[in-house]
Amino acid sequence: MSEKEYPPLEKVSIVISKGSLDGIYPGLIMANGARMEGIDATVFFTFFGLEAILKKRMKKIKVATVGNPAMHMPSLLGMLPGMSAFATSMMKKEMDRLDIPPVDEFIEMLSDAGAELYACKATVEMFHLAKDDFVPQVDAIINVATFYEKSAGAQIIFT
Amino acid sequence: MSEKEYPPLEKVSIVISKGSLDGIYPGLIMANGARMEGIDATVFFTFFGLEAILKKRMKKIKVATVGNPAMHMPSLLGMLPGMSAFATSMMKKEMDRLDIPPVDEFIEMLSDAGAELYACKATVEMFHLAKDDFVPQVDAIINVATFYEKSAGAQIIFT
Amino acid sequence: MSEKEYPPLEKVSIVISKGSLDGIYPGLIMANGARMEGIDATVFFTFFGLEAILKKRMKKIKVATVGNPAMHMPSLLGMLPGMSAFATSMMKKEMDRLDIPPVDEFIEMLSDAGAELYACKATVEMFHLAKDDFVPQVDAIINVATFYEKSAGAQIIFT
Repeated sequence: MSEKEYPPLEKVSIVISKGSLDGIYPGLIMANGARMEGIDATVFFTFFGLEAILKKRMKKIKVATVGNPAMHMPSLLGMLPGMSAFATSMMKKEMDRLDIPPVDEFIEMLSDAGAELYACKATVEMFHLAKDDFVPQVDAIINVATFYEKSAGAQIIFT
Repeated sequence: MSEKEYPPLEKVSIVISKGSLDGIYPGLIMANGARMEGIDATVFFTFFGLEAILKKRMKKIKVATVGNPAMHMPSLLGMLPGMSAFATSMMKKEMDRLDIPPVDEFIEMLSDAGAELYACKATVEMFHLAKDDFVPQVDAIINVATFYEKSAGAQIIFT
Repeated sequence: MSEKEYPPLEKVSIVISKGSLDGIYPGLIMANGARMEGIDATVFFTFFGLEAILKKRMKKIKVATVGNPAMHMPSLLGMLPGMSAFATSMMKKEMDRLDIPPVDEFIEMLSDAGAELYACKATVEMFHLAKDDFVPQVDAIINVATFYEKSAGAQIIFT
């Protein structure tokens, strides 16, 4: 590859669109890693990703076991009601060991670290939600146009 | 975060790779939001995302209920043949209320708004499809090299 | 759309985060397409995407049939233990016809073409893995901070 030097990344705009633990964590971890490096980070929660910032849901998020062949479980086993809970508990234990906080604490940590958190207006309306359903760390409910404005100069990362 | 001002985003290159309603809509909505703001938008349909532009499939796209813990259904319930249809009908009703058009009309609207729509050559060949299987709004079937050429100056957003 | 000319894309930084065949191939194909065009390519494997570079797993990766409505199978049928294997064998046959190599050979080809391959440190620790569990083409196990450093000047594409 080329040896060309580029100026360092200054800003990321991360979209979290999935509602499972394995769908939410990559975006949170990338946002946090950015802030640790002094990179500006905006996180935009949309579709099922809204789960991560909903007061009533954020503590109940599970790993997606069915439909994920990487879990190495025969499909019929993955369907048993307890399996997702089991995989979730395993993953949470491992994350705890690595000092990766649960979703609610992670959101607080990100906000404290200066990341800006936004909920997608269209999804909020589709699911009949209101500002009060979200944790106070959510800066605003914004539409796609505002998302693009806030993403000026950023790498957009859709997770 | 820094208060640095950046020039506005000029162009997005959106890849749609999933074949469920919840996999297709985020990309369509982001492409449309871009055009509304005067941002250039190219949409590249690949893998199961081709569903969105296939004449025979685009009106039959469903929500992925199984393997999506955010649907809040016990896994065995999500498996019942009718559940995906039920979730799909609910989501379509809500989108209709928000004036979000069905996939086929959305594709027409995007094309009318000046978005460029492309199908991925490798996937087209893998699924034994031809140009005629796609809606006329599809500008061309292109390979990855051409995708990168058309993405010059754009934020690439893989959904 | 505007007729503005932009300088060509110089570098991509591709994140592979899913562990199914249909989750892994788009990233591999985009990385390879980049190298073919003289575009620098870095591939970062994280979460279940690690499957693609694990010696013991890379030859056993399957298509996700359950939870993928684009497969056109009734959900209960998709659950039968043999269905994912069947879809996987179909997809592999088609890819072979198109000269798309299996995952292990694809990784070798990418490395030979000059792509840089990295494993995500947090996931490696979460799954109790070590450098020796990975194919020798993996350049290093790196954290998010190093990922951002290596992504300077690149389009980040999260698949």
